[in-house]
Amino acid sequence: MKQERYAYIVSDRTGLTAEAMAQSLLTQFPEVNFHTRLIPFIDDEAKAQSLLSEINESTNKAGNKSLVFVTLIDDNIRNIINTGNCVVYDLFDTFIGPMERELDLHSSHTVGQSHGVKDTNAYTSRMAAVHFAMQTDDGMDTSHYNRSDLIITGVSRSGKTPTSLYLSLHFGLFVSNYPLTGEELERKRLPEVLIEYREKVFGLTIDPLRLLQIRQERYRGKTYSSAQTCQTEVAQAENMFRVARIPYLNTTRMSVEEIGATILHRAGLRRRVQL
Amino acid sequence: MKQERYAYIVSDRTGLTAEAMAQSLLTQFPEVNFHTRLIPFIDDEAKAQSLLSEINESTNKAGNKSLVFVTLIDDNIRNIINTGNCVVYDLFDTFIGPMERELDLHSSHTVGQSHGVKDTNAYTSRMAAVHFAMQTDDGMDTSHYNRSDLIITGVSRSGKTPTSLYLSLHFGLFVSNYPLTGEELERKRLPEVLIEYREKVFGLTIDPLRLLQIRQERYRGKTYSSAQTCQTEVAQAENMFRVARIPYLNTTRMSVEEIGATILHRAGLRRRVQL
Repeated sequence: MKQERYAYIVSDRTGLTAEAMAQSLLTQFPEVNFHTRLIPFIDDEAKAQSLLSEINESTNKAGNKSLVFVTLIDDNIRNIINTGNCVVYDLFDTFIGPMERELDLHSSHTVGQSHGVKDTNAYTSRMAAVHFAMQTDDGMDTSHYNRSDLIITGVSRSGKTPTSLYLSLHFGLFVSNYPLTGEELERKRLPEVLIEYREKVFGLTIDPLRLLQIRQERYRGKTYSSAQTCQTEVAQAENMFRVARIPYLNTTRMSVEEIGATILHRAGLRRRVQL
Repeated sequence: MKQERYAYIVSDRTGLTAEAMAQSLLTQFPEVNFHTRLIPFIDDEAKAQSLLSEINESTNKAGNKSLVFVTLIDDNIRNIINTGNCVVYDLFDTFIGPMERELDLHSSHTVGQSHGVKDTNAYTSRMAAVHFAMQTDDGMDTSHYNRSDLIITGVSRSGKTPTSLYLSLHFGLFVSNYPLTGEELERKRLPEVLIEYREKVFGLTIDPLRLLQIRQERYRGKTYSSAQTCQTEVAQAENMFRVARIPYLNTTRMSVEEIGATILHRAGLRRRVQL
């Protein structure tokens, strides 16, 4: 029988970074059956006390100490959690002490240090980028390609739209996407509208079987989602990328984050907004 | 004069989680002038060696040891980085040893443990959610609101579209958004189409001055971006939310991640895709 454990991710803010970090730690122990909960916005002592009771109950229920991953700036809140019948992994404070010694400085110990005008500008940039990505999604408004940082192309359902939105939202980049379909695929040459901007073009490809699976989930039975169509379209697209010497990436089994990070890395693009 | 330091974020994968964590640590030391670089996909020893030279050069250049934040699974790669003339903060491995002792298990030490079929399904769900969000953006296709997990509403440029896309992309939620404009705002009642789904509706509001600033960046001079219009629209929208008892949030000075996490928290929604 699998070991049962409750795992809490506790933060005074959104806890999203802590959640991603904790999740990658927990996946290193596949033999354990983790019950994981994200608890954001623990920003006063009353909330910490109430959470503490819940953590202790979970420990009793599982018969094993709960694992608690925290990123908390306030010492008082952290001290409350530390009194629990649980094991606390402090994803943040663990490094602050060593950094203070190395830098010979005290940390500012402030929540949301990164906020303020810098964030306001970042928000505006990200918003503008998202609106641009939507405006130039799926081959629309190609007349704006002079403003694009990146133009993603590939067959239908190869992941262009989620990737474009991800890159615009998180990196503030102006990303357009252009679908390769029927006639343009058969012509074997990069579509006219992309030629002028070929240094910005990045191709996505995907295993035909995976493409078939994705297309069938919504459009079962049409030519569009036949095995033959998927195979032909992928072969035509990959051939087009090779002939035109467009860099491309096989997205099968990659998450949107991985596709995005890989494209940025290979295309040498930098984020337009700072974290 | 500010202390100069190079900071590297080094990962065998995208490094995005490590980057967010490192950034929040670095912001605790505003007195230091950090030169930060994200180095993803360090997945073999040759890449590690070449990076090592660069890190050592940066240390010489700054006259201070470079700070290196790593999330690396492979011991050999980590060992190479550890030989550098730098301070290494291991965001991942620091916790693996203590977790192994607590769980009385060895960690699997595998890169990308979370991949495979689970991710494939997550990808499909996220893609479907993104397409739904785009299909029902800005009041389009309201006939699909029966499938929405959440319907975000607010005046133009209050952050509805980026928030909808963020929640669909990262949480796999089906999020629609509906703009409040002219006549509907004046009528002071929740628009007809939202009444039926009012338990799914969440309002966004924003300080009028901030709204003015955002609107002027693209539409300077029109009525739409006059101070008077911004003030009136925001007051009308907030009043509508209060009368209809719709939960709402002031997004001024919040990042998209914070807006998203706050809505999920307040609306009691859970992610549809696991990390």
